[in-house]
Amino acid sequence: MSENIYVGVDLGGTAIKVGICDEQGKLLHTYEGPTEVDKGVDTVIDNIEKYVRQIVEESPYSWDRLAGVGAGVAGFTNVREGIVILAPNVGFRDVPIRSILEERLGKPVKIDNDANVAALGEAWAGAGAGVENCVCYTLGTGVGGGIIINGKIYQGFSGMAGELGHVSIVPDLEAIKCGCGKMGCLETVSSATGIIRMAKDAVERGDHTSLSTVPVIMAKDVFDAAKAGDEVALRIVHRAAFYLGKSLAAVTAVLNPQAYIIGGGVSKAGNILFDEVRSVFASYTPEPLQEGVSIVPATLGNDAGIVGAAGLLIRS
Amino acid sequence: MSENIYVGVDLGGTAIKVGICDEQGKLLHTYEGPTEVDKGVDTVIDNIEKYVRQIVEESPYSWDRLAGVGAGVAGFTNVREGIVILAPNVGFRDVPIRSILEERLGKPVKIDNDANVAALGEAWAGAGAGVENCVCYTLGTGVGGGIIINGKIYQGFSGMAGELGHVSIVPDLEAIKCGCGKMGCLETVSSATGIIRMAKDAVERGDHTSLSTVPVIMAKDVFDAAKAGDEVALRIVHRAAFYLGKSLAAVTAVLNPQAYIIGGGVSKAGNILFDEVRSVFASYTPEPLQEGVSIVPATLGNDAGIVGAAGLLIRS
Repeated sequence: MSENIYVGVDLGGTAIKVGICDEQGKLLHTYEGPTEVDKGVDTVIDNIEKYVRQIVEESPYSWDRLAGVGAGVAGFTNVREGIVILAPNVGFRDVPIRSILEERLGKPVKIDNDANVAALGEAWAGAGAGVENCVCYTLGTGVGGGIIINGKIYQGFSGMAGELGHVSIVPDLEAIKCGCGKMGCLETVSSATGIIRMAKDAVERGDHTSLSTVPVIMAKDVFDAAKAGDEVALRIVHRAAFYLGKSLAAVTAVLNPQAYIIGGGVSKAGNILFDEVRSVFASYTPEPLQEGVSIVPATLGNDAGIVGAAGLLIRS
Repeated sequence: MSENIYVGVDLGGTAIKVGICDEQGKLLHTYEGPTEVDKGVDTVIDNIEKYVRQIVEESPYSWDRLAGVGAGVAGFTNVREGIVILAPNVGFRDVPIRSILEERLGKPVKIDNDANVAALGEAWAGAGAGVENCVCYTLGTGVGGGIIINGKIYQGFSGMAGELGHVSIVPDLEAIKCGCGKMGCLETVSSATGIIRMAKDAVERGDHTSLSTVPVIMAKDVFDAAKAGDEVALRIVHRAAFYLGKSLAAVTAVLNPQAYIIGGGVSKAGNILFDEVRSVFASYTPEPLQEGVSIVPATLGNDAGIVGAAGLLIRS
């Protein structure tokens, strides 16, 4: 009972989730409280401190055993300096969150963006446990990514490695403009937003599909319709899976990772998505590069952010 | 005068090139002798040993100062075990070259494949000197690549990272099959072989081009014709540059390297190639990921292999 513990913080626009992990990344306790973005940056920081102290106090572990605190935040972060450059969801701009929290808590603090942190969580204690080199995709509103090299998050030259949603993979003739301003990004077809857009387009142009009876189409509706045999929905799912599979093939020729871990809401579609992704990956990846590579669903779900944030203390 | 020296070996099918480098990667002396593949594996190994001893003996440096020997070979290598798995050019199959040379020379030996070694040479002492994270393309008969992370060659899960010629980047509707068996690999359009193929296709289908008067078309002929304004040749050069630029954009979203170093025979085309590659890169890469990234020609030419091989002792 003398092992270190680590607290991970998942800083979201509505709630701040905190969790205690052991040295192996096992999530022992969680706690969740309101972010209170409307009350301003200082209150948000007060809340982080409060929830971190609270979860340790209410746990069987003493404060002394807390080896450090990690935090993941949706936005641009300067990992080296520990600064949140821009995080619209929580109203942060140029907030030196690391030094502020280190002073208040008297513990080492590390931060990173949500996609990297989720990737680290899965790599450390989720679907990638035991794998040194893997690549994680989070298919949600956008497509996030994280590159794990030798068990750690790879940051790249300017801290922007793993922007997997912005691999331009859709050919010009069928591409649309991405939110980033460029054409054909993976995110335009393989995110929930992309899938919903393709479904709405199909309904609007009068394609014969059960989706036309759905008042507000969600990505899950498209997958459900596809599973029920709706051909329009199947085409959409195949397109989302095709470009995701092609992007995995491209990443493989570059990085030769051992595993791809795919999480986020869209990944819950299950086999209808994964079978196609694996098939496309196999079609476009030279045989020797396919050997031993696995493409698997994320296993930590919403806890990946907390676990990965805690993991920043050990794995960065 | 008490610095270590390193010998790099570039093991080719016709010649074995050896060179002495200092600790900064400066190439001090070179020597070249026949490989004598026809005399068998043992003779080739005898020759490597002979040329390494010879270049040091004929140099002002004593054998004691030789800190190690590195070798690059075209083929599949097992870097960890120091084995050449298959190198058809020199007739090697499952040759434990590292242990053989270490025993004969009494010095540490490291090996890697030619593309990785050339990348390391450029990253260490060529166009990438001072850059920690860069990606190197060698545009020759095929398209080779090497990924440099934190100053070292990145091997990936099974030692096949950096197979940049096999990123499937050409859309299905205009793709052809690559030597690797897959469709649309970068190598099919941006290698010398790819450029020559496109030129021959154009001549055969009767396109109006000055290339139709060239008896045996080489990649250089296509670039020369393009520079002279030949529209068919320009289209071919643009196509080779377009997919190379798109692949750089894709690699950037994944790895966020600081520099791309482009070498090999095709890179000698100069600005007509590089201007287009930079322009396409800018079109398909989100703005923040472009900042501070350079796309530059390799500077070591044929010496990259020797220098990088010597660098294996320091940078791997």
